[in-house]
Amino acid sequence: KLWGYTGHTMAKFLVTFAVGVITGCFAVALSKCVSILISSKLLFIQNQMTLYEEDPAMAAFIGLLWFVLFGGIMVSIATSMVQYWAPASAGAGVTLVMAYLNGNHIPNLLRFSTLITKFVGTVFAVSSGLPMGPEGPMVHIGACVASVITYMDFKYLTSGKLFGRLKVKEIAIKERLKVLDEIVSDSDHREFVSAGVSAGIAAAFAAPIGGVLFSMEEACTFWSKKTAWRCFICGALSVYTVQIINPALGDGAIPLSNMTPLTIREWAEQLPFLLVDFAMAGLLGAAFNSLRMWLWKVRAAKTLHLQRIAEVIGLVFLVGSCAFFFASTAGKCLELPPTWEEDGYGVRFLCPEGQHNDLATLFLSNTHETIIALFSMGKGSAVPGSETFVPYFSIGSLALYTACYVVLMSIGAGLAIPGGLFMPSIVVGGCWGGMWGYVIKDLIPSWKVQPGIYGMLAATGVLGSVFRSAISLVVLMVEGTRGVDYIFGIILAVVVANYVANFIHHDGVYESELERVGNVYMLQSDPPSRLNTLTTESIMATGVKGFRPIESLVTLLEVLATTSHNGFPVWSEGSDVESADLKTEGSASEDEGCRRLEGIITRSQLLVLLQRRHFVDAHGNPVGREFSEGYELELETEMRTFFRRYYTHCRYISATRQPLESLSLDNGGLAAVDLNSLYLDLRPYMNRSPVTVRKECAASRAHQVFVNLNMRHLFVVDSHNHVVGLITRKDLDHAAGHGWWRMSHQAEPPRNK
Amino acid sequence: KLWGYTGHTMAKFLVTFAVGVITGCFAVALSKCVSILISSKLLFIQNQMTLYEEDPAMAAFIGLLWFVLFGGIMVSIATSMVQYWAPASAGAGVTLVMAYLNGNHIPNLLRFSTLITKFVGTVFAVSSGLPMGPEGPMVHIGACVASVITYMDFKYLTSGKLFGRLKVKEIAIKERLKVLDEIVSDSDHREFVSAGVSAGIAAAFAAPIGGVLFSMEEACTFWSKKTAWRCFICGALSVYTVQIINPALGDGAIPLSNMTPLTIREWAEQLPFLLVDFAMAGLLGAAFNSLRMWLWKVRAAKTLHLQRIAEVIGLVFLVGSCAFFFASTAGKCLELPPTWEEDGYGVRFLCPEGQHNDLATLFLSNTHETIIALFSMGKGSAVPGSETFVPYFSIGSLALYTACYVVLMSIGAGLAIPGGLFMPSIVVGGCWGGMWGYVIKDLIPSWKVQPGIYGMLAATGVLGSVFRSAISLVVLMVEGTRGVDYIFGIILAVVVANYVANFIHHDGVYESELERVGNVYMLQSDPPSRLNTLTTESIMATGVKGFRPIESLVTLLEVLATTSHNGFPVWSEGSDVESADLKTEGSASEDEGCRRLEGIITRSQLLVLLQRRHFVDAHGNPVGREFSEGYELELETEMRTFFRRYYTHCRYISATRQPLESLSLDNGGLAAVDLNSLYLDLRPYMNRSPVTVRKECAASRAHQVFVNLNMRHLFVVDSHNHVVGLITRKDLDHAAGHGWWRMSHQAEPPRNK
Repeated sequence: KLWGYTGHTMAKFLVTFAVGVITGCFAVALSKCVSILISSKLLFIQNQMTLYEEDPAMAAFIGLLWFVLFGGIMVSIATSMVQYWAPASAGAGVTLVMAYLNGNHIPNLLRFSTLITKFVGTVFAVSSGLPMGPEGPMVHIGACVASVITYMDFKYLTSGKLFGRLKVKEIAIKERLKVLDEIVSDSDHREFVSAGVSAGIAAAFAAPIGGVLFSMEEACTFWSKKTAWRCFICGALSVYTVQIINPALGDGAIPLSNMTPLTIREWAEQLPFLLVDFAMAGLLGAAFNSLRMWLWKVRAAKTLHLQRIAEVIGLVFLVGSCAFFFASTAGKCLELPPTWEEDGYGVRFLCPEGQHNDLATLFLSNTHETIIALFSMGKGSAVPGSETFVPYFSIGSLALYTACYVVLMSIGAGLAIPGGLFMPSIVVGGCWGGMWGYVIKDLIPSWKVQPGIYGMLAATGVLGSVFRSAISLVVLMVEGTRGVDYIFGIILAVVVANYVANFIHHDGVYESELERVGNVYMLQSDPPSRLNTLTTESIMATGVKGFRPIESLVTLLEVLATTSHNGFPVWSEGSDVESADLKTEGSASEDEGCRRLEGIITRSQLLVLLQRRHFVDAHGNPVGREFSEGYELELETEMRTFFRRYYTHCRYISATRQPLESLSLDNGGLAAVDLNSLYLDLRPYMNRSPVTVRKECAASRAHQVFVNLNMRHLFVVDSHNHVVGLITRKDLDHAAGHGWWRMSHQAEPPRNK
Repeated sequence: KLWGYTGHTMAKFLVTFAVGVITGCFAVALSKCVSILISSKLLFIQNQMTLYEEDPAMAAFIGLLWFVLFGGIMVSIATSMVQYWAPASAGAGVTLVMAYLNGNHIPNLLRFSTLITKFVGTVFAVSSGLPMGPEGPMVHIGACVASVITYMDFKYLTSGKLFGRLKVKEIAIKERLKVLDEIVSDSDHREFVSAGVSAGIAAAFAAPIGGVLFSMEEACTFWSKKTAWRCFICGALSVYTVQIINPALGDGAIPLSNMTPLTIREWAEQLPFLLVDFAMAGLLGAAFNSLRMWLWKVRAAKTLHLQRIAEVIGLVFLVGSCAFFFASTAGKCLELPPTWEEDGYGVRFLCPEGQHNDLATLFLSNTHETIIALFSMGKGSAVPGSETFVPYFSIGSLALYTACYVVLMSIGAGLAIPGGLFMPSIVVGGCWGGMWGYVIKDLIPSWKVQPGIYGMLAATGVLGSVFRSAISLVVLMVEGTRGVDYIFGIILAVVVANYVANFIHHDGVYESELERVGNVYMLQSDPPSRLNTLTTESIMATGVKGFRPIESLVTLLEVLATTSHNGFPVWSEGSDVESADLKTEGSASEDEGCRRLEGIITRSQLLVLLQRRHFVDAHGNPVGREFSEGYELELETEMRTFFRRYYTHCRYISATRQPLESLSLDNGGLAAVDLNSLYLDLRPYMNRSPVTVRKECAASRAHQVFVNLNMRHLFVVDSHNHVVGLITRKDLDHAAGHGWWRMSHQAEPPRNK
């Protein structure tokens, strides 16, 4: 102990630091890999095309060929990894991380294999020119990093891979294991994952505060001061790491350049046009959401590996075709701005030296650089030196690109490849806004309209309408662009876009994806209003199976094998007087006479007891063993770490018959003894003081208890403390019903008899 | 309803906006008043002294006279207001706001009178030259603004002062009242107060994020996403208001000027000296804390009005004497830097034109400007133009001032006048650090030491050691000084100062003040570790008084008059079988046979029922009234708003005999009826589904339930659901015992029989 801190606190801080730094490194590596891959690909394609300069059609065809070849190889690798190795890494991953942080178990979500696939897949997806961004995957990568770091020790130490087989210092390792067991409980793990989320988004936008707020507003259900600090430290460290390695990011991830803040008069004059800008941004976002939802119907099933791979390659081909066809037919050759020349941005395509084909630039360049270019269309957006006004992009090209991009990104969202929606939404908004700005600039030349500002605000609007989040978005945009001067415009854009988009459909991309996932039950931290008018009794499940304090092995095995329940009440055998009394009342006495709640025991505890053959006879005397304190302690530790030791990342298997069969209790293992004479004494292991709710209780209060105390099973009792039902996550979700936040899918009704 | 929002949400947002803007206005008014008062006072004194320029002793005496006269008048007014009108406004007020937000009831803490006194008192205290700052009071002012706004309507509408007596639109007002009753529940009020705290500190430091973090780290116990958003919006608005009215604050409240960030080499070279700087800052903070705690013993009692006023005037005299004595004997005449001349900073005292007396400047100027001057002692701290190096302040003067100031601020903390400790701590740190920087500059002239950086970091260190907070402090300093480049130095300073100060004493200024307050029971949001080894049974109070569902008036009145309990269990009369069963067990059956918990009723509900003469006979049939739905609804509303309607700001009175006597049930009121034949039917009003804990439950779990579900009374039951005890805030506090966070005082033991 030092200064009130134990080693545990220090260890947790070290883990937090490590998560922040490593996530930052991933962010830097991601952006470096993407920019190197894209620029070398572009250079090669450009060189190949230059060979056929005299025949434009041929040149475009050759370019397309190489584009599809490169892209196809990259996405094939990525999609194969996703399909055959780590299916949980498809898509952005933010939704599933949200569900995980809400308390759902998502198999394999935070494995090491998922982390690797996510990273490689995102690099390839973005580099191959698919309309996808790295921000959403960064959230998932941050969460994976946190999970891998906190679980790593357990996995290698307990499976014996690292030290066990070498038989070196075995005792010391066991001691160390105990400390680690203490440090990382389930709720600590959740806290680290929250911190990882914050670090991921913070690193992607170079926005430490925005990271904390995103983690709080979108990702986390459980929030406390401790979590906030962890997120803050972790996010700040990851941003710091990014800036140390790549000092250019000091100006924000998507810096505004070339723009001057609007005066109050300019705001007032341009307000009507800005409102149109925001409203259209809202419509674009909503259109994307609707299209994406409609496309789910026609996508290949998740299990058809080859079809899924073909889908992705098809999208690469589609993107390439659009790019090369439109670039050669509709693209305009414009003068290359000098700042672009320095950065190596702008695709020449078939234009003369010193010019760029604007559509080719939009389609083929690094999306991140395109956004920076769009956000620099300020007052001086004419190329300096030239007398006439030459825009960065022509109006027609921007309009065409916006329309294409919305369709392509809708197709892209939901494919078996990692990729996020932040960047594409920003591109769509930036293009639309820039185009609108140029239109107004043409209409009213005296106003000095800055298309870049229209683009930036429209990008915020599209983000708002796609994600339907508010304040974290504002802070992310302000921090990401370092555009504090535009904060009121940004707020207005988010509000207007949200309002307009709400006429088309209600839920943002996270909510609708959560519905699609199906076996995920999201609990809001505030009880849904519908629960205010219900009682606990009306929402609970009644088919509760329980055990007596000393239960026979036969009954236990039967119940464990025939149900998939994870928590069981232990109820008293009941004094005759009371059960007689109850029988006359005829209320709660159903099959076992008296069901007065004594405690709760979980399936994992029972499995540990069975595995250890921890049997007693009918009177509670141990069979075939002596009492030993060390043994009991070991038992206790194993019960706590059961899922981590045996079912890391896939704890759902524990509720199937499989672990029971692997114990081989029925046959060989116990041939010598009669199964009927064996019992388990549950009293020392059950939770003797379960928090319960009364059946008259308001369902919203039950929701509060369930969520605030982080429960998995909440037993419902009557005023005699007899068990009448059980509330789980599913029941609360079912009872919440069809609120504004949920349009289609809901949990099945509770299991009542 | 619009877009999922009801009018309530909108009303709450409007309240939040109003709190932010009004708090911002208070902040601006405060700083303006202070700077005007101080500068005109200084101008007058300087002119008076110039008349006696030939006789320095006489001049100093005349100056002192006027100083004490002005200051004495101002503090007399302020202290009289505090003593005779609003005692709750003494001191910084942060501690009491913390206690309030923890769930304690503090009489009159957030009244309108407290707000006015706090504002006027702070202006006078700071203007009269006392070693006090406006930041702590700003927190209290923000909290008061929030409370006054949320409660204003109720007070004027229900007391009938505004409309009732005019009998205008009475029905419309009643309708409106219902809406307001819905809007502002106790927990909403707490949320608004949290937002006010955030707005107050944000406005004081021009740091919106720092405000949220301070509210989260220091002030609030209950924290949720909703609270965070409210704090954020409110803080951002108040900062925005401040900056609109006073654009100079755009660079932060205490901007660094004249300084260049250290290179990594400079950090490394100066590290040993910086560590000494931080350690000494920690010692200074700890010395202040110890001295302040020791001085509590010799202060006047709170009730001795005149002595308390004399104390404050005495301090003014002491400050004045120190200032004028040291300035004329030890003060050095130094050249006036040109930037100071522009700002009108620097006191000439008896020096020649174009110079200033450094000690007089330190003692007599506006503290805020002194801090800015201290933080601008950078590379160019020599007066430009002059060949030789002339510091802003001489080393001796800084040392003398640091020593004096620590003593004076220790005396000041705890007087009957509003005033905070942030500013004084920063001054002490700034002076010490600046002096140390000058010393090193003299020792190693080749290093280009910047004393201002030493001062700024030492100021952070002193703050850290006085308040023992960490991250909110770092963010506040970074935002307040806009010194992002120094963030790692700031973090190091906080850590080192905290570490060093911990050797002297453990608790920060808030913790030690909480102990001194006495009747405040602070619950941490994480259970203290001591509770992990206790059961609920061992910490609960057992002397629980309860009622039967239909209880006789005589029993009720007796229990209400003889206890000061605020919550009572309603227990069943019990079937004979069960109570017989229990008697044989001989466990929980004490005086009333069976104590099976049916529900909970509060004293306020009983008082409403009594006041409305809501009686029944022994069989539950109403006496002297018919059932009416409207009447029942009214009853329900009155129960919910009882404390706000009758005991706003002083709800403790409700648990005395006074309200009972004012009902005059014993004598006149009910002469016609026999008291013994009257009963109250509690069943329709009690909470039928109380959350309880079992007596075997770990005390830390009970703490979690109590704190997470925001309870006031938590009944402890056995497995038969019989009441065996009760846990209140006091019991949890007592059980937490003497941890690191509490050194002296603790709650009395639970009331056991």
